[in-house]
Amino acid sequence: MFDRLKSLAGLAVVVCTMAFLAPSLAAAQSDPLPSWNDTAPKAAIVAFVKKVTTDGTPDFVPEPERVAVFDNDGTLWTEHPMYVQLAFALDRVKAEAPNHPEWKTTQPFKAVLEGDMKALAASGEKGLVELIMATHAGMSVDEFQKTVTDWITAARDPRFKKLYTELVYQPMLELLSYLRANGFKTFIVSGGGIEMMRPWTERVYGVPPEQVVGSSIKTQFEMKDGAPMLFRLPQVNFIDDKAGKPVGINEHIGRRPIAAFGNSDGDLEMLQWTTLAPGARFGLIVHHTDAEREYAYDRDTEFGRLDKALDAAAVNHWTVVDMKNDWKRIFPWN
Amino acid sequence: MFDRLKSLAGLAVVVCTMAFLAPSLAAAQSDPLPSWNDTAPKAAIVAFVKKVTTDGTPDFVPEPERVAVFDNDGTLWTEHPMYVQLAFALDRVKAEAPNHPEWKTTQPFKAVLEGDMKALAASGEKGLVELIMATHAGMSVDEFQKTVTDWITAARDPRFKKLYTELVYQPMLELLSYLRANGFKTFIVSGGGIEMMRPWTERVYGVPPEQVVGSSIKTQFEMKDGAPMLFRLPQVNFIDDKAGKPVGINEHIGRRPIAAFGNSDGDLEMLQWTTLAPGARFGLIVHHTDAEREYAYDRDTEFGRLDKALDAAAVNHWTVVDMKNDWKRIFPWN
Repeated sequence: MFDRLKSLAGLAVVVCTMAFLAPSLAAAQSDPLPSWNDTAPKAAIVAFVKKVTTDGTPDFVPEPERVAVFDNDGTLWTEHPMYVQLAFALDRVKAEAPNHPEWKTTQPFKAVLEGDMKALAASGEKGLVELIMATHAGMSVDEFQKTVTDWITAARDPRFKKLYTELVYQPMLELLSYLRANGFKTFIVSGGGIEMMRPWTERVYGVPPEQVVGSSIKTQFEMKDGAPMLFRLPQVNFIDDKAGKPVGINEHIGRRPIAAFGNSDGDLEMLQWTTLAPGARFGLIVHHTDAEREYAYDRDTEFGRLDKALDAAAVNHWTVVDMKNDWKRIFPWN
Repeated sequence: MFDRLKSLAGLAVVVCTMAFLAPSLAAAQSDPLPSWNDTAPKAAIVAFVKKVTTDGTPDFVPEPERVAVFDNDGTLWTEHPMYVQLAFALDRVKAEAPNHPEWKTTQPFKAVLEGDMKALAASGEKGLVELIMATHAGMSVDEFQKTVTDWITAARDPRFKKLYTELVYQPMLELLSYLRANGFKTFIVSGGGIEMMRPWTERVYGVPPEQVVGSSIKTQFEMKDGAPMLFRLPQVNFIDDKAGKPVGINEHIGRRPIAAFGNSDGDLEMLQWTTLAPGARFGLIVHHTDAEREYAYDRDTEFGRLDKALDAAAVNHWTVVDMKNDWKRIFPWN
C-alpha cells in the first residue's frame, strides 16, 4: 500500500506540475510574436490578421490577395550609422583602389580613401551615384552576386562588431513568419539595390529572390564565347523609393498589398498606396526610439528620416512601433 | 448453392472487368499529359522532370530553384491572325474614335478606322507604338485593368469565334499543371503587355500576377483628392522581348530558370539564358505546323517568326514540338 501511495503522490506531483506549467506552455505555443511586448502594436497586428483570415466575415481576404510589403533599411535591419549598402560601396572603393590610381586625386573617391566623411557628404547625391556606379557596375550579374555574398558573410558593423545579417530585428523576423503562417506572401520593397539583397534574404528573412523589389541598374544580355551573360551597366534602371515604391510594387507584384511595414519618409507612398483603399488594410511604422539597444532618430537624420510619414501615421491611423517600449529584444542575439 | 454460384460468377465478372480496366485506369491516373501524343517531346519532358526531382542524383534540383518560364503569344495561346494585344488596340481605337475626331484624318488611326491593313502595316513600328500609347495610356491602372477585363471576356476571334482565353493550348495547360505538381514555379515571360495579361492569367493558366513578366509603360504615383492612384503614362518603360527577356527574368525573378518554353525568335535569348549553363536544363519550342486545327507558320510570317531559334534548337538540342504530330488536341474545346 505504501508503494501505491508513493505512485499516487508521484502522479499528483506530475499532474500539478503540468497544471502549473500548462498556461506558460500554452502561451509559449500560442504566442507567435514572443519578442513583442503586450502593448498596442502587437494587439493591432494580431487583430488585423484574425480579421482577414476569418471566413464568412466582410473583412475576409482570400489567400492569394494576402500580400504584405516590407521596407528593409530601418524596418528589418539597421540603417545606422549608415545604409549597409553605403558601407559596402565604401569597402569596395578601398578594395578596388589598387586598380584605380586616379581615385587618389578624384572626388568622391579621394574622400573615401582618406576617410574624409565631410568631403564625402559634400559630394552630395552626384558623388553617391558615382560611387555606386563605380562599385556596382562593370561586371556580370554572377560576379556581382559573388562579391555581395563574400562581403555580407564577412563585413562587420563598427559598433556591435556583428555581421550585418545579424543586425536584423528579431520581432520583425517573428512577424514575417507569423504572416506567412497565416497565408500571407511577404515581399521586400526597398530603396536599396535589388541585387544587394537577393543573395541572402531567403536565408535570413524567408523572402525568396522573386519576392524582392528594389532599386536597380541596367543590365544587358550578351553571348560571350558561346555562353550567355548578363552585364551590369553604369546606368540607373529604377529607383524604388518614395513615389517609386508603388510603381515598383505594381510592376513586380501586380497586386495591391493589404499590409505595409516601413520606418521612414521613403515609405510614405507605399503606406498610402496600401492603406488608403477599401477593405481591411494595415500600415505600420517602426520608430527608432532606443539609443541604448540600437539607435534613436527620426525627423533630423541623414539616414532614414521619419518626419512626414510620422505625421501621416497619426492622420491615417497607422500603427507606430516604439522600439524602446514595444520590443522585448531587438536583435536575435540579444 | 445456385445463389452461391451466381455470387461467385458476379464476383468473377467484377474482378475480370477491373483487371481489364486497371491498366487504362492506371494509365489515365498516371498520365499527367493526356493531350500529348506518345512522341519524343512528351518523353523528353517527363524524363527531365524525373531527373530534377529525384533525390540523391547529381541532376537533382532543390524545389526553390525549379523555375520554369513560358512565353505567351504562340506558346500558350494563338498569335494569328495577329497578336491578341493588337486586336485589342484596334478595337480600342474604334471604341474611342468618337472622342477623337482627328483620328479620321491621322495615320495610323485612319488606317484602323477604315480597316486598311495595308496602310496600317506601312505605318511600321512607329505607327504601332502610337497605337499602343493612344490605347494603353492616359488612365489609371485600375481603369485599364477594367478595360482589359471587359474586353477579354467579350471579344471573339474572327475564325473560331471563341473568346481569346479559349484559344489556349490544352497540352500546355497540362504541362503547366504537371510542372507545378512537381514543385516548379511557373512564370510567364512575354513580349506582350504585363497589364494585358495579369487580369486573367491566374484564372486561365494558374499563373498569378506576381509571376507574370512582360512589357510595360511608365506609371506615376499621385495623390488625387486624398486617394492614391497610379497613372499610366504614354512612355515605354521596358520591352520584354528578345535580348530583353533575360533582363526581365533577372529583374523580376532574380533566379536563373531551369526550363524555358517558347515558339519564336523572340524567345531565342530566353532559351539561351536558361539552357546554356551547368546542370539539368530544358528548352522547348512549339512549332506551328497545323494549318487545319490552328495555323502553320515559321520563317516567313508577320507574327511569331521562327527562324534563327529553329536553327538554334537543332544546335542546342532543344525539344521541338510539331503541333500537328505531337498534340492529340489543340484547344480545350476540341
